[in-house]
Amino acid sequence: MLYLGIDGGGSGCRAAVADEAGRVLGRGAGGPANIASDLEGARENLLRAARAALADAGLPESEMPRLRAGLGLAGANGRGFAERLRAALPFAEARIVSDAVAAVKGALGERDGIVAALGTGSVFARQRGGAVRLIGGWGLILGDEASGAWIGRAILSQALRAVDGFVPQTPLLAALVAEQGGPDGVVNLSLAARPADFAAFAPRVVASDDPAAREVMDRAVAEVAAAVDLLQEGAALPVVLLGGLGPVFAARLGGRWAVIPALGTALDGALLLARGG
Amino acid sequence: MLYLGIDGGGSGCRAAVADEAGRVLGRGAGGPANIASDLEGARENLLRAARAALADAGLPESEMPRLRAGLGLAGANGRGFAERLRAALPFAEARIVSDAVAAVKGALGERDGIVAALGTGSVFARQRGGAVRLIGGWGLILGDEASGAWIGRAILSQALRAVDGFVPQTPLLAALVAEQGGPDGVVNLSLAARPADFAAFAPRVVASDDPAAREVMDRAVAEVAAAVDLLQEGAALPVVLLGGLGPVFAARLGGRWAVIPALGTALDGALLLARGG
Repeated sequence: MLYLGIDGGGSGCRAAVADEAGRVLGRGAGGPANIASDLEGARENLLRAARAALADAGLPESEMPRLRAGLGLAGANGRGFAERLRAALPFAEARIVSDAVAAVKGALGERDGIVAALGTGSVFARQRGGAVRLIGGWGLILGDEASGAWIGRAILSQALRAVDGFVPQTPLLAALVAEQGGPDGVVNLSLAARPADFAAFAPRVVASDDPAAREVMDRAVAEVAAAVDLLQEGAALPVVLLGGLGPVFAARLGGRWAVIPALGTALDGALLLARGG
Repeated sequence: MLYLGIDGGGSGCRAAVADEAGRVLGRGAGGPANIASDLEGARENLLRAARAALADAGLPESEMPRLRAGLGLAGANGRGFAERLRAALPFAEARIVSDAVAAVKGALGERDGIVAALGTGSVFARQRGGAVRLIGGWGLILGDEASGAWIGRAILSQALRAVDGFVPQTPLLAALVAEQGGPDGVVNLSLAARPADFAAFAPRVVASDDPAAREVMDRAVAEVAAAVDLLQEGAALPVVLLGGLGPVFAARLGGRWAVIPALGTALDGALLLARGG
């Protein structure tokens, strides 16, 4: 039996073909695969990645209809998209989950535990008995608490509140406003900024011991703690902190729960799914 | 001596011609006049309004170069715009301030006091000895605390937090999510929403005694109180609450300070400015 794992998101997709024992035989890559924003384009890109993985493994394309596939794809939580994609795939079997669920399965394998993914956005999840519950991840406008974008936006908001006198002026806040040519420049930046643009300010906040930076980070840590506590429901499950800010929060929250490293990637999670995990 | 007042914003401009005693002799209107987004268009529209006001007063257009003008215009706080406009105006004298400052002067006349303008956005101001200090008004992404848009966004954010279990579910929160076809619908709405779209939810929050609505309104009232307290600096200046939400906050904050009605409009403020106020 051959298995195919695919991890796909807005920036590209990765595929791996593995044998019964989980040994990876070949790998491939393709373009973006968000099935909510472009289902047909996602299908083409993930099939290209699958063919490349078969070729890398020295296997003929005629193996495609025999593959048992696990797919973790951006947009798979949107209604109907996964069903429509499944009907258009050539594999013997296809289990489709969101990229977030694949990341949780990759990080925890079959263990019970909690995953906090903290990058430009944020999402939190618990796996218990193989079932995954996701919370958060609603995007920066209404949520994404403690994400890089949330941290960057928070420090810019504080910079304007310092201009007004609501909060004390600090060197970091004054520098941020000066860099934008004054408060109107900060407002203009905010009007054009995508989440990644706000997140670009996060590393300075994380690295700074400016009082305003520490206050924003204290709030971010409290948000992560609240989300993990909610998912623990009084238990003491181990916690994996993923994403660019994962190590930052691991350092700040390690005393609170057992923080463990990820077992594997979202692609590993997709392969596990393919193999029935 | 003849005076011209102009109140201009993104949706249109209004003009009034008055005599030495402040008696309005004629009125006119024109198209949008935001000098930051379209200075030349704003100039044409406000001159059209001025000519209409002269005609309404039975005065010839040849009076234009003798008018002493006060202009409250959106975008006038942006750098350089007011100077560029002034150089292109035909009046004997032109004093240009932001539409917010004109609203403050109209609301307070020459009195010392505080103005909180609470509509789709929010901005707070103090006038003392004729000098106006503005705080807030940075827009919804980084500020506009307690505005209609801020209230609407806050209740939608709480609705998603109730889905996740961070806060208790309530009838209003459940109804908001159901109306959008589920949490993904709320997220989609947020991605496309302009401030006015968020503000459209504010009347329901204001009118509801749902616990989540009351919690959002308590936070909004605290934001208004903090801004007014900051501007009071320990004084007990009278407070005018303007905008669609003004009466809402007046009812909730009337015991705290002397809340007084506005003396006049932003157009009255522009006329006062023209007359040297």
